[in-house]
Amino acid sequence: MTVLPFYQNRPSFSSLRDLQPTTTALRHTLKQRTVKAARSIGLVEKKFATWNEPLRLDSGASLSPVTLAYETYGHLNEARDNAILLLHALSGDAHAAGKHETEDRKAGWWDAMIGPGRYFDTDRFFFICSNVLGGCQGSTGPSSLNPKTGKPYGANFPVLTISDMVRAQARLINNLGIETLHAVVGGSMGGFQALEWATAYPDRVNNVVLLATTARSSPQTIGWNSIGRRAIMSDPRWRRGDYYDHESPVDGLAVARMIGHITYVSETSLEDKFGRRFQEGQGPRFELEPEFAVESYLDYQGDSFNQRFDANSYLYITKAMDYWDLAAKYGSLEKAFARSHARFLLLSFSSDWLYSPAESQAIADALRHLNRSVEHIVMPSTAGHDAFLIHNELQGPIIADFLA
Amino acid sequence: MTVLPFYQNRPSFSSLRDLQPTTTALRHTLKQRTVKAARSIGLVEKKFATWNEPLRLDSGASLSPVTLAYETYGHLNEARDNAILLLHALSGDAHAAGKHETEDRKAGWWDAMIGPGRYFDTDRFFFICSNVLGGCQGSTGPSSLNPKTGKPYGANFPVLTISDMVRAQARLINNLGIETLHAVVGGSMGGFQALEWATAYPDRVNNVVLLATTARSSPQTIGWNSIGRRAIMSDPRWRRGDYYDHESPVDGLAVARMIGHITYVSETSLEDKFGRRFQEGQGPRFELEPEFAVESYLDYQGDSFNQRFDANSYLYITKAMDYWDLAAKYGSLEKAFARSHARFLLLSFSSDWLYSPAESQAIADALRHLNRSVEHIVMPSTAGHDAFLIHNELQGPIIADFLA
Repeated sequence: MTVLPFYQNRPSFSSLRDLQPTTTALRHTLKQRTVKAARSIGLVEKKFATWNEPLRLDSGASLSPVTLAYETYGHLNEARDNAILLLHALSGDAHAAGKHETEDRKAGWWDAMIGPGRYFDTDRFFFICSNVLGGCQGSTGPSSLNPKTGKPYGANFPVLTISDMVRAQARLINNLGIETLHAVVGGSMGGFQALEWATAYPDRVNNVVLLATTARSSPQTIGWNSIGRRAIMSDPRWRRGDYYDHESPVDGLAVARMIGHITYVSETSLEDKFGRRFQEGQGPRFELEPEFAVESYLDYQGDSFNQRFDANSYLYITKAMDYWDLAAKYGSLEKAFARSHARFLLLSFSSDWLYSPAESQAIADALRHLNRSVEHIVMPSTAGHDAFLIHNELQGPIIADFLA
Repeated sequence: MTVLPFYQNRPSFSSLRDLQPTTTALRHTLKQRTVKAARSIGLVEKKFATWNEPLRLDSGASLSPVTLAYETYGHLNEARDNAILLLHALSGDAHAAGKHETEDRKAGWWDAMIGPGRYFDTDRFFFICSNVLGGCQGSTGPSSLNPKTGKPYGANFPVLTISDMVRAQARLINNLGIETLHAVVGGSMGGFQALEWATAYPDRVNNVVLLATTARSSPQTIGWNSIGRRAIMSDPRWRRGDYYDHESPVDGLAVARMIGHITYVSETSLEDKFGRRFQEGQGPRFELEPEFAVESYLDYQGDSFNQRFDANSYLYITKAMDYWDLAAKYGSLEKAFARSHARFLLLSFSSDWLYSPAESQAIADALRHLNRSVEHIVMPSTAGHDAFLIHNELQGPIIADFLA
């Protein structure tokens, strides 16, 4: 494990200013990148792949038809050996880079990392990102039509696992004519999928980049997810999942997202951003409604999440996360990783208390025990779990170096 | 600051290293206590004190009549100088020790600490515990009748602060004919009140025992409370607080309590107690309902809380907690503590991430800066914030020594 200097010296994580790149190689990389002009991928298109052949699920159920929404950036080379699969987190989707329309307000969720000359260099690699099975951004999920009823599945959608999600993705990679992936890359739940890829399809993955992730959902993280599910399912608008012709369970999903949000940031980042400030222009009004800036912020996070996410998908995806336990599937982490000969890069973040650096270290320890190629770097950050979506200038050169 | 040995060995808290193992005096005390026969206080009675004189509140509103429910254990001596005020946490009440009826299943919330020969020795001291203003166990709160309407206050109850709670308690101490308290003792929100007593009534408090507490609610703790309030207030059964003739907002209060519960324990304690076990006799059933033991446990905590707590009281008390900021009231912690000449004992718990040892240390630092008598001991524990309600054998001798 390499711990970058700030993390070593400043247990309170109050600033990123003191960070010095540790190695000459890293400094060199940083220099190279600033010289090269990097730009956005520009306009991109969401695509869809559909299979009528039933997809067998871990539960014993099967699903048909199965559609995955996906996007690709860059070009697959003739040898078909430059493909990198990007795997999204709980609330992510297939739209990782670029814009669908010029006037789109926001680019894809990892746009700062992806493009010609960017850390995920589309001049060199062919990137694929698909919305997970169970999702709500074009892939088959609880809001999809159940062919047996002609109505949305709702709570009749089968409960999924991370393995199921990856089994569906494997079909997409087959469709694209790719036998072996140069790399799988994922943060948070994307890391679960990357680990599943590396162990379930060991011959098809050469390199694995894991960010802010874990090999196993802990009882605390199951607890947070479970409270979120209870909030959704006890919202009367949930109607046992059958709300698509009605108002959706907006308060339940907002509460679930607000809980999640606190776990994605850190105590320090909340102090730095909000402290105990009241909402702009207000002192204490002595009323029960939100008064502090941090409260308005959380409310906003909860409410705006409703604009882009389906409550049933939240139930199914968090459930799949809770089942996640790689060691249990194979008997131990060592037995899981004995299947793979990929190179591993793990990045964790000092202030991430959801999937802490210790959880990445447990993965690295198991790999090192097997003499696999593995590097674990603890990045200095006050941003908490979400750091992997933020510190692109910090993590980018390290990832680019690893993939080169 | 003293850090007890087990704590010393936990590398994640390496900065708190100036630990000396327990002193000879402490070992001596432990020996003494085991020799002396300690027993429960036995049957106790809940009492009530009511004032018609309006209580002025920080908000500018005033409240009348005001009732406090309270209990006392032991006897006030002739000098009236052996009184100790015990201050309860968010979900506590006046019933700290003994039983109301012989057949009561449970004794008071701190019964293990209180009684003849116990660490809070009723042969020697006179203990008082009152339900906070805003509570739901006999003191005036949102479920009380509003004399202007003849109906429960509900959301028309005035928003309170910790100062307001303590101002009401001061009336009770006056009623009991006590000018100066030998000590105020409080854990968590009880510690907020103890700090308020020591600074708002500095001449009336000789000793202060603070357990697992803070001088200031952080934005993260405000966030957790705010999500709990949103869960309650968005439960349609809340009916803007006017639910006393109807079903109460049971799901909202359950969700609020479940969130709180995770913050009261630690990741380690959840691992030790539940790990990733499924409910007894069950494997994964692949359904959305709770399946893991930790989920059933949290559900149980949430549902059973509804049997003993009023959702509106939860709103008002958490709001008072969020306002808590002792330094803001006086300009700084030093200015606040300059008012007091009491002796201070602070106990914090290594795995408490709600009010961490660092927050106790900030209080101790301010006191030491003023040359006040202060000791801060970090207790080794995996129990999280709730440790102060659990580790009676560990904390009891230290507190008893301090009070002697």
